[in-house]
Amino acid sequence: MSNARFERIALIGIGLIGSSIAHAARRAGLAGQIVGSARTAATVRTALDLGIVDEGYATAPEAARGADLIILCTPVGICGAVAKEINEAGAFAQGAILTDVGSVKSAIVDDVTPHVPDGVHFIAGHPIAGTEQSGPEAGFAELFENRWCILTPTQDCDADAVAKLKAFWEHLGSHVEIMTPRHHDRVLAITSHVPHLIAFNIVNTAGHLERVNDQEVIKFSAGGFRDFTRIAASDPTMWRDVFLNNKEAVLEMLGRFTEDLTALQRAIRYDEGDTLHRLFSDARTLRQGIIEAGQDTDAPDFGRQAAAGPEKAEPPED
Amino acid sequence: MSNARFERIALIGIGLIGSSIAHAARRAGLAGQIVGSARTAATVRTALDLGIVDEGYATAPEAARGADLIILCTPVGICGAVAKEINEAGAFAQGAILTDVGSVKSAIVDDVTPHVPDGVHFIAGHPIAGTEQSGPEAGFAELFENRWCILTPTQDCDADAVAKLKAFWEHLGSHVEIMTPRHHDRVLAITSHVPHLIAFNIVNTAGHLERVNDQEVIKFSAGGFRDFTRIAASDPTMWRDVFLNNKEAVLEMLGRFTEDLTALQRAIRYDEGDTLHRLFSDARTLRQGIIEAGQDTDAPDFGRQAAAGPEKAEPPED
Repeated sequence: MSNARFERIALIGIGLIGSSIAHAARRAGLAGQIVGSARTAATVRTALDLGIVDEGYATAPEAARGADLIILCTPVGICGAVAKEINEAGAFAQGAILTDVGSVKSAIVDDVTPHVPDGVHFIAGHPIAGTEQSGPEAGFAELFENRWCILTPTQDCDADAVAKLKAFWEHLGSHVEIMTPRHHDRVLAITSHVPHLIAFNIVNTAGHLERVNDQEVIKFSAGGFRDFTRIAASDPTMWRDVFLNNKEAVLEMLGRFTEDLTALQRAIRYDEGDTLHRLFSDARTLRQGIIEAGQDTDAPDFGRQAAAGPEKAEPPED
Repeated sequence: MSNARFERIALIGIGLIGSSIAHAARRAGLAGQIVGSARTAATVRTALDLGIVDEGYATAPEAARGADLIILCTPVGICGAVAKEINEAGAFAQGAILTDVGSVKSAIVDDVTPHVPDGVHFIAGHPIAGTEQSGPEAGFAELFENRWCILTPTQDCDADAVAKLKAFWEHLGSHVEIMTPRHHDRVLAITSHVPHLIAFNIVNTAGHLERVNDQEVIKFSAGGFRDFTRIAASDPTMWRDVFLNNKEAVLEMLGRFTEDLTALQRAIRYDEGDTLHRLFSDARTLRQGIIEAGQDTDAPDFGRQAAAGPEKAEPPED
């Protein structure tokens, strides 16, 4: 593992991911100093109060100035603008590594690259980790442990810089994989973006029914629905940007999903029990692979404990 | 709470739900004797070995004979045939309560009612509880705690029998709600059946991609996909029967889901960021209701712990 220590790490954006990087980097002794900037003064204040950053700034160039590692932890849609702002202020240090944590990669590479001066190493990245919670208070040092981080360096990226950033993520607890931005966007479209879209969608479909009310959806959600609501609780701005910036792959995967769903729908309509049974059996196999790979727990029902006190509400009868 | 004790409880089918009822009823002192029958001799043997049933039988009439509570815990599709078999053997005791645990209610009421003799009280039921695991080994006494059980008695059901069955479920730890079979099927279509169908579907869509392989789907599943795989690991036979027997409500909800998804897809295609943001924000509210109602945990990421040792596999680049 290469040396993974940086003298000054600048976090541009201090939400769930930025603050978790700060906690994990500090714990692993990877940072001389950690500084950051955020869109609102309240977030900067919270990050300072919680000891997430040593110094907090109102603007990205102030945080980035003098940093040897700059991590863009903003929504995907503004990464290009932030890089431009830092560059125009002349705040990129020679030899610095610039990376990001965005959930799409082709668009970010396209948006950010024009604003990276010679002698600065831009290596786009994406830790596949997160929770449904947002903000600097939500971060914790263990977030990246045993999760994968994908780096998508372009062919002219400096090999030493890539090795150092790879080592940095490994010290945070992650496994690192290198792939092209385009392949990343395809993989994430199916493993993350379309699942989120579907989850947002079914929650809204449930919310608009006339003959089943919200209280009933809530009370009887343990039948499966609640599993979808966890990821549907994720940050709306982040996700808007993901879909607008990975349009091609998302629309392709969504087309396949809808095609497959239409076939299932047809099998239900025409009582094709054998088809249903076969397709449902196939789906079990992949679940087993995920558990064996340590990417989920096999505790029944995710190991949820029975909780206290549901509300009492009367449903309509129809 | 009425007296909820039975002298002989017969479980027809001893899988996750049947065995959990046995554990919970025994713990609460609700049963003189618990007996059961299962489709295979191996399941009967396991249930006896684990102390789930006091007596095990090869056929439903043998188990049902002399029981004052008979619970059909088989897949939905065979409930009618099982009731017929018990009735034709003359094995229903006068005054007995017959119930079931199936995930659809109208079809079961239609299928079972013709085979219930006078003096036997058939009250269809559905505990909204479960895990992705199957079989007698999967059962546990706490499964029903703080979960809802829906009973769908018809208008001519005996009030005392309904009160006793309600008390039984309350002693197992559940909250009980009474509604019509038709309303039940509508509520469950959106809170359980369509979510399962979508989960099965996306897992299969992911499995059929040419340019993203299964190992990649598994490795990067922490981005959201894995949440869907838990419910897609559920028993295929049970779910085939659910869809074939709740066709009308499932197809209606699926139509709405697809309509809403098409609108989201269109918003992505035409860069309608405000529409996406608004719809994603709406979805958060319902999640909060589910947590407040004690039907899910607000531990980030369901409180999953980082687990050990993922496989190493090389992905294709494209």
